[in-house]
Amino acid sequence: MNRIPFEEVKKTLAGVLVRLGFSAERAETCARLFAETTRDGVYTHGVNRFARYVATIRNGRVDPSAEPEVIARFGALERWDGHRGPGNLNALAATARAIELGREHGVGCVALGNTNHWMRGGTYGWQAAEAGMIGVCWTNTMPNLPPWGGAARIIGNNPLIIAVPRAAGPVVLDMAMSQFSYGALESYRKRGEMLPVDGGFDAEGNLTRDPGAIEKSWRPLPMGYWKGSGLSVLLDMVAAMMTLGRATYQIPDDAILETAISQMFLTLNPSAFGEAAEAERIADAVVASLHNCAPAKPGGKVRYPGEQTPQIREENMRLGLPVEPAVWAEILAM
Amino acid sequence: MNRIPFEEVKKTLAGVLVRLGFSAERAETCARLFAETTRDGVYTHGVNRFARYVATIRNGRVDPSAEPEVIARFGALERWDGHRGPGNLNALAATARAIELGREHGVGCVALGNTNHWMRGGTYGWQAAEAGMIGVCWTNTMPNLPPWGGAARIIGNNPLIIAVPRAAGPVVLDMAMSQFSYGALESYRKRGEMLPVDGGFDAEGNLTRDPGAIEKSWRPLPMGYWKGSGLSVLLDMVAAMMTLGRATYQIPDDAILETAISQMFLTLNPSAFGEAAEAERIADAVVASLHNCAPAKPGGKVRYPGEQTPQIREENMRLGLPVEPAVWAEILAM
Repeated sequence: MNRIPFEEVKKTLAGVLVRLGFSAERAETCARLFAETTRDGVYTHGVNRFARYVATIRNGRVDPSAEPEVIARFGALERWDGHRGPGNLNALAATARAIELGREHGVGCVALGNTNHWMRGGTYGWQAAEAGMIGVCWTNTMPNLPPWGGAARIIGNNPLIIAVPRAAGPVVLDMAMSQFSYGALESYRKRGEMLPVDGGFDAEGNLTRDPGAIEKSWRPLPMGYWKGSGLSVLLDMVAAMMTLGRATYQIPDDAILETAISQMFLTLNPSAFGEAAEAERIADAVVASLHNCAPAKPGGKVRYPGEQTPQIREENMRLGLPVEPAVWAEILAM
Repeated sequence: MNRIPFEEVKKTLAGVLVRLGFSAERAETCARLFAETTRDGVYTHGVNRFARYVATIRNGRVDPSAEPEVIARFGALERWDGHRGPGNLNALAATARAIELGREHGVGCVALGNTNHWMRGGTYGWQAAEAGMIGVCWTNTMPNLPPWGGAARIIGNNPLIIAVPRAAGPVVLDMAMSQFSYGALESYRKRGEMLPVDGGFDAEGNLTRDPGAIEKSWRPLPMGYWKGSGLSVLLDMVAAMMTLGRATYQIPDDAILETAISQMFLTLNPSAFGEAAEAERIADAVVASLHNCAPAKPGGKVRYPGEQTPQIREENMRLGLPVEPAVWAEILAM
């Protein structure tokens, strides 16, 4: 594993993006988001994902020069057209506007249609929380999960993010509707390990912890079985209705061809009535209640969502971002 | 099983409530909500729950004459104090106001603190959807679930509801953060059945499908293991911060003593920009995509959340509401 300084990663990726048609400023922002994602330990959606991102620009699914545009406004609600621009830049802009709407109205919502994969969803949760807002956002995706009771992959894993601001560091939940991602299944299989809990069905339709069997059946489990399946359906439905954009069943079933997806960005302002410190004290107390919980296993600890991020971030900034040599070589050759 | 006409159930419950200090009008509304819950097939939270509801009035946790009050307003956001009144009446009023805010601002939010158990959460989803709104609401609860990695019950099962309006009938997701409720565990145990999937830990800390073992360990699973645990924490945190009310760790760990809980009611207006029919067509198409999905088992069918409600409702209105003789006798004696 290489360790490459954050700034060098950012500069290298930005150089590639400029050559692909990004303006210098947008290339810098986009490269920063990829580098920050790896910095924060979300390796699946950072530098390791860059080649796939570049592929979607080269095949025309992502228009590097397209900018998102507000197409309808009503009070605290806006509808935006992403014009199939870079999904992470679109989502960043939509979140920034949702933050403004939350400041103006106490609650704000941007419904962003016709956009592309936002890479790490947690990025927009951190963005909202660092601006003092509670952020709730979700995206639909290509069909990659069978609904409960179904054999075909027709619903999305539709990540949902909820983020809460705190001076001691945001609490950020970033979770897809599948119990395990395909990337996680692959990692377990390559390590020769079974999953810690059932992760899907085998070819005979039995629940299994065998990652390879699930990869073959293409039937991973929704988290919570029928519950995650239902939540995926509702998140998709709401995003498509509010954007008048595409629902999952209309999105191409291929990671390289996925485009024109629908996303929601909601903010709630915990200091709308002026008690930011009091709201924060409440969040801190909930965190303390988790830390005081008796562990299930000796020496264990109950953590809040996102708790490990600051430590990983600090380590990766100090040592350099961990990047596989093959991944880095591929990027240097772009 | 008795079959008692809807109107008779409603009238009987209303009579009890009047004797407990409810005004005639509020008794009628409250009784209607209980009868409608049983009518819709949510038997755990309808007439079967009435005795426990009455107990919380008799022990002073619920003040039958308290009315919810707006205590702060900012744009599309309001904070309400439930004054520890009847949880279902408070939630009904908060939803009605969130619907108005959604009409005025495109998105609306009522944060309701110091309230009580809302009985069936789906009630408020149906209410929003029948008013043409997308409704998103959740509540915190007493601590009844161990967080992921923890041995003690310190988080809530915090039901989350998402409802979408459609002329063909709303889509309503109503789900708690536990994979199985204690009521469901009890039902399986009494029928001598194992759970269809792992539902919690046994005394040795192993995952199990044995409902009795889970009842003994008091360690049911969050839906999706770590995912439902994280979602429960965030829903609690947001509700407590926005209401400046109680978080789960502060709520008495006893169904009869639970009080002063925190709830969130959000609305999104899918016809804010005038395209109600188009948004509805999108929801219908998502439903159709589920119905067209190949079933996991021959003869099976993929259903949308809430799909079975209209049929159950029709049957219960035609035949009368199903009520256990012992439950009915207890109510008649009140």
